[in-house]
Amino acid sequence: MTLKIIIRNVLTITALCSIAIVSLVNAEDTDKALLKRAQALFSPLPDTLRVDDYPFSDARVELGKALFFETRVSTDGRMSCAACHNPSYHGGDSLALSVGLNGKKLPRNAPTVFNTPLLISQHYGGNRLTVEEQAMKALLSPLAYGNKNYAEAEAKLKTLGYAKKFDEAFPNESDPVSAENWATAIGAFERTLLTPAPFDRYLKGDQRAISKEAKIGLDKFMSVGCAGCHSGVVVGGQSFQKFGLTEDYWLATGSKEQELLKGRDKGKFHDTQKPEDMFIFKVPQLRNVAMTPPYFHDGSVAKLDDAVRVMARLQLGKQLSDDDVNHIVAFLQTLTGEVPANFAKAPVLPVSPYNN
Amino acid sequence: MTLKIIIRNVLTITALCSIAIVSLVNAEDTDKALLKRAQALFSPLPDTLRVDDYPFSDARVELGKALFFETRVSTDGRMSCAACHNPSYHGGDSLALSVGLNGKKLPRNAPTVFNTPLLISQHYGGNRLTVEEQAMKALLSPLAYGNKNYAEAEAKLKTLGYAKKFDEAFPNESDPVSAENWATAIGAFERTLLTPAPFDRYLKGDQRAISKEAKIGLDKFMSVGCAGCHSGVVVGGQSFQKFGLTEDYWLATGSKEQELLKGRDKGKFHDTQKPEDMFIFKVPQLRNVAMTPPYFHDGSVAKLDDAVRVMARLQLGKQLSDDDVNHIVAFLQTLTGEVPANFAKAPVLPVSPYNN
Repeated sequence: MTLKIIIRNVLTITALCSIAIVSLVNAEDTDKALLKRAQALFSPLPDTLRVDDYPFSDARVELGKALFFETRVSTDGRMSCAACHNPSYHGGDSLALSVGLNGKKLPRNAPTVFNTPLLISQHYGGNRLTVEEQAMKALLSPLAYGNKNYAEAEAKLKTLGYAKKFDEAFPNESDPVSAENWATAIGAFERTLLTPAPFDRYLKGDQRAISKEAKIGLDKFMSVGCAGCHSGVVVGGQSFQKFGLTEDYWLATGSKEQELLKGRDKGKFHDTQKPEDMFIFKVPQLRNVAMTPPYFHDGSVAKLDDAVRVMARLQLGKQLSDDDVNHIVAFLQTLTGEVPANFAKAPVLPVSPYNN
Repeated sequence: MTLKIIIRNVLTITALCSIAIVSLVNAEDTDKALLKRAQALFSPLPDTLRVDDYPFSDARVELGKALFFETRVSTDGRMSCAACHNPSYHGGDSLALSVGLNGKKLPRNAPTVFNTPLLISQHYGGNRLTVEEQAMKALLSPLAYGNKNYAEAEAKLKTLGYAKKFDEAFPNESDPVSAENWATAIGAFERTLLTPAPFDRYLKGDQRAISKEAKIGLDKFMSVGCAGCHSGVVVGGQSFQKFGLTEDYWLATGSKEQELLKGRDKGKFHDTQKPEDMFIFKVPQLRNVAMTPPYFHDGSVAKLDDAVRVMARLQLGKQLSDDDVNHIVAFLQTLTGEVPANFAKAPVLPVSPYNN
C-alpha cells in the first residue's frame, strides 16, 4: 500500500511537472510569436536623431532650448513653445483646447512635442511638414507669437541679446539672427526630445520589460486593427485618416467643444479646401498617450479608456469589452517615457533691457 | 661708488617696500572698516527658513511646488504662480507689466518670488501680509486664477487628483484639500526659494567674495543714502516709502505704461484710500535685482544703471556720476544668487481626466 501510494504520488508530481513545463514552453513560444509580430509592425526609438543628414551642434541645441522657453518674442510677452508644450505635462498642456496669444482659445488640442520630428508632418491637419516649419510659421501666427513679419521677430531677438548665441550656433554666417535659424535651432532642440519607453526595451527583446496584461493588450491592439494606423516607430503619426469611418464622430461623442467653435472641425479640408480632405486628420502618435489627456484633436474625451472605446467604435466599427479596453490601456502605458532631463530643467534666459 | 650705489638702491627698495606695506595695511584697514559698516546694515540670508515656529515637511514642500506650477486651477487653464514667477527669468517674468488671466495686462510689474517670505509684506502696495495670504487670495483674483469662490478651486484640486498629495502633506486633517492648505503648501515651497549670493559670503567675512569695484559701490550705496531704505537681510523690503520724494516720479520718467493705465498708480492709497498713503509703495528687495529688469512697480525703466540714477534723483535729490552709478551697479550684481535647483526643475503634475 505504502509503496503504491509513493508511486502514485511520484507519477502525479511528474505529470503535473510535465504540464507545467509544457505550459511554460507554450507560454514562451507565445511570447516569442507575439514579439515577432510586434517587431514586424513597430520599431524602437533610435538612440539619437543626430544623424549625418541632420547635423547639429550643442550650441545649436542650447540656443534652441532657450528660444523654446523664450516668451518675449511673442507680442503679449507670454507665449512660447513651452506655453503649449509644458515640461510639467509631458510636453503638452493638459487642456482640451490650447490657449494662445492674449488668452485666445485655439481651435485644437496641443499634442506632446516629444518625438514629433518622427511624425509624417506637424499639426492635426498636417499643414506643417517639419518641426522647423512649424516653429518658423508660429512666429507670424496671430494665435501664437503674433509678429507682423519676420523682421519684427528678428529685431526682438537682437534686442533680447541673442546675437552671440546665434553666432555660436551658426558660426559661418554673416547675419545669423534670422527666422530660419530660429526654426533650425528650435528644431535641433526638439530633435533631442525622444522618450524611450518600456515598449522599446520589449521590442529589443526584453520580454520582462512589459507586463503580461500589456502583452495581452498588445496582442489585442494588433488583432482588433488599431495597429492598422498606429504602427511604426511612434505608433502612429505616419498617415492621414478620416475621423469617424464607421460612424459620425460628432454625433457619437456630442463634443461640447465643437459647439464653442460653431461648426465642425473639418480637418485637412480647412487647409486644402478639397472635398476628399473633409474630416481627414493626421493619425496621432501614441507614445506618451497615457500622460497626455484629454484626447483627440478637440480634447473632447477626457479618459484613455474612453478614447480607446471611441476609436474602436468609430474607426473599426467594434464594441470592445471592458477587459479588452483595460488590456489595451495597459499596453498603451508601456509607451510612456520619462520627460527628458534637458527639457525638465528651465534655461536661464538672457537678462535684457527689454521693455514690452 | 659701487658701495654707494648699492646702499642707495637698498635704501630705495626698503622705502618702496615700506610704502607698499603701509598701503596694504591701510587697504586692509579700509576693507575691514567697510565690512564692519556693511555688517551693521545688512545681514546674510539664513541657511533655511525651516525654523521651529514655521515647520514644514518635505511632502508639503513637494505639494507646494506642484501647485505652484499647476495651471488647471485657473479658469483659463494657463495661469499659475509660475506664469509670473518663471524659473527662466529668475523668478520674475521679465515684462514691464505682468500678464494675467485671459491675457489681461496687470497694473504692476511682477517682482521675483525669491526670498519673498522675508519681506515685510507682499505686493507693491503691501496689501498681502504673507506669501500664504498672497497665494490664497490669488485663487479668487479676476486677474489671476479667476475662481468664483474657494469651493470652486477646491473642487478642481480634487478632480485633478491632488487628494492623496494633500493627505500626505497634511496628515492629521479630515478634509485637507482646502484653499488654506493650498496657501500653506505653496508658502512652504516659497520659503525654500532663498538665493544666497556673493554678498552673503562677503558679509560672513570673505573679503574676496566681491570685487574692488563692488566694494567701492557698496561704500557709495551706504554713503549716498540708498541703504537708508535698502538695508537688512534682503536689502530693502522692510518699509514703505513715497515714490518721488524730491521730484514727481511720473513727470520725471515720462512713464508710457502709466498712460496706458489712464491714471497714475497711487500705490498703497488704492487699498486704504487714506491721503497719507498716496504714492506710497513698499520698498522692494534688491536681491537678484541685476537679473530682474525692467524696474519699478510699473517696469518703466529698462536698465539697472538708469534705475539707480532715477532712484538717486527722485528719492535722494542727488545726481550721481557715471562712475558712481557703475560702482553701485557692480555692488548690486553681488546680490545675484543662483536659481534654486528645485525651482528650475519642472515637476511632473498629476495626469487627470480633466477637461476644461
